[in-house]
Amino acid sequence: MTTIKSVTLIGSGNVATHLGIALKKAGIFIDCVYSKTKENADALAQMLDANYTDKIKDIYSNSDLYIISVSDNAIEKVAKKLNDKLGKSLSVVHTSGVTPSTILSNYFDSYGVLYPLQTFTKNREVDIAKVPFFINSSDSSLEHRLYILALNLSPKVFFLSDEKRKVLHVAAIFTNNFTNFLLSVTEDILKQENIPMNYIYPLITETAAKVTDELSPAKIQTGPAKRHDQNTIDTHSEYLGKYPDYKELYLKITDMIQEKYK
Amino acid sequence: MTTIKSVTLIGSGNVATHLGIALKKAGIFIDCVYSKTKENADALAQMLDANYTDKIKDIYSNSDLYIISVSDNAIEKVAKKLNDKLGKSLSVVHTSGVTPSTILSNYFDSYGVLYPLQTFTKNREVDIAKVPFFINSSDSSLEHRLYILALNLSPKVFFLSDEKRKVLHVAAIFTNNFTNFLLSVTEDILKQENIPMNYIYPLITETAAKVTDELSPAKIQTGPAKRHDQNTIDTHSEYLGKYPDYKELYLKITDMIQEKYK
Repeated sequence: MTTIKSVTLIGSGNVATHLGIALKKAGIFIDCVYSKTKENADALAQMLDANYTDKIKDIYSNSDLYIISVSDNAIEKVAKKLNDKLGKSLSVVHTSGVTPSTILSNYFDSYGVLYPLQTFTKNREVDIAKVPFFINSSDSSLEHRLYILALNLSPKVFFLSDEKRKVLHVAAIFTNNFTNFLLSVTEDILKQENIPMNYIYPLITETAAKVTDELSPAKIQTGPAKRHDQNTIDTHSEYLGKYPDYKELYLKITDMIQEKYK
Repeated sequence: MTTIKSVTLIGSGNVATHLGIALKKAGIFIDCVYSKTKENADALAQMLDANYTDKIKDIYSNSDLYIISVSDNAIEKVAKKLNDKLGKSLSVVHTSGVTPSTILSNYFDSYGVLYPLQTFTKNREVDIAKVPFFINSSDSSLEHRLYILALNLSPKVFFLSDEKRKVLHVAAIFTNNFTNFLLSVTEDILKQENIPMNYIYPLITETAAKVTDELSPAKIQTGPAKRHDQNTIDTHSEYLGKYPDYKELYLKITDMIQEKYK
């Protein structure tokens, strides 16, 4: 079995960018970067010493692996076009948490998923060795090659079914998207009162550190909701009267915590 | 002006414990620990080489400062009893984020607040030098002495009014209590599917790190809600059907994010 030595990268967003950089660092050759926006394809291709194109019909069949890293609703469209041009014989993966690998099944004989679970931001370096990768494939040979490829990027590589990866993705929404939104509420409230955001940084850090130090969040819950401290809840709620949405969210989560710790 | 060299600690909860340990390390003498539960008073007093009591009438007037670190609804009760026994001449602070300093005004001439903004857990060490302390007092001499006392514990000491401290406390609820609750949702969902919680640790760490590295959470929001990716939202929502509360919360926060990023 040959290992994957070259890749065509389809997409130029956050995941494609960080994955492309990591692959190149690991010695994988990036044949071509595709993006529907030519400038984006060009920019990422320059970073990766790759060719680029904004036309799927200009992609060639010489890569060991094709990585589709586009928004979920574009995956099938791109797969279909790639199949139209190059047939079913390519090895193709996507990088989505929520979309099943089987979305590629009509278009390629050998398909799978390479899902890096991290929040990527352009222009922010990520230590890829700390990113867990989740892989699966209907083709055991491709699965094996994906495993070896991912191990070149990070020691944290796991097999995970489409169904379980979807659950992990839902969990990631609560963990990152929703948490980040709560932090934006914090930012907003503090800004209104000219209270520096950095006053709360140590609390943000420790909140995360407790859980990643293996304390169960259910067991370390604190606060007025958990204590059923109605006076404090009323004081907060009254203050939040000027932010009706935040007040509603405050009361909603407070109710859920009170219900959990009756 | 003399600095504070001795303290009586009223309370034996998480804040009292961590504060007591930090004060002792900083060379402050702990005269006495009070708790309504004798065993708790005894246990903390042993750690602090202090006397202990479960009766406020056994507290003496020899301490430079009295720190009331009890639940918010007990602060005034304790203050009143302390006043009954020792009069108005003590210097007294409480450690609450939400309760105004003025709750002590009827009972003591010299009163204030010493509020450490952190999430404390018993048996988990906290680097007190990274904890920001917020102080205020109606008495400028006490305020100055509190400032010097707090600087012995942490370089991060700030003056903050009762009103602004309350806002900071509301923000801390979103930042810690509610975030921790979201992490308990994650824990619950993953556990049901036998997916190890540590798969998501790097995401937890990076979510916090981005914000404490001074990226604005409002500017780095990502995810299906922000992208208005209705297919993914529907897939998640369908999966969450077996957790009606979590589904409702998912849709609520998703709505708020969609509203914010129209």
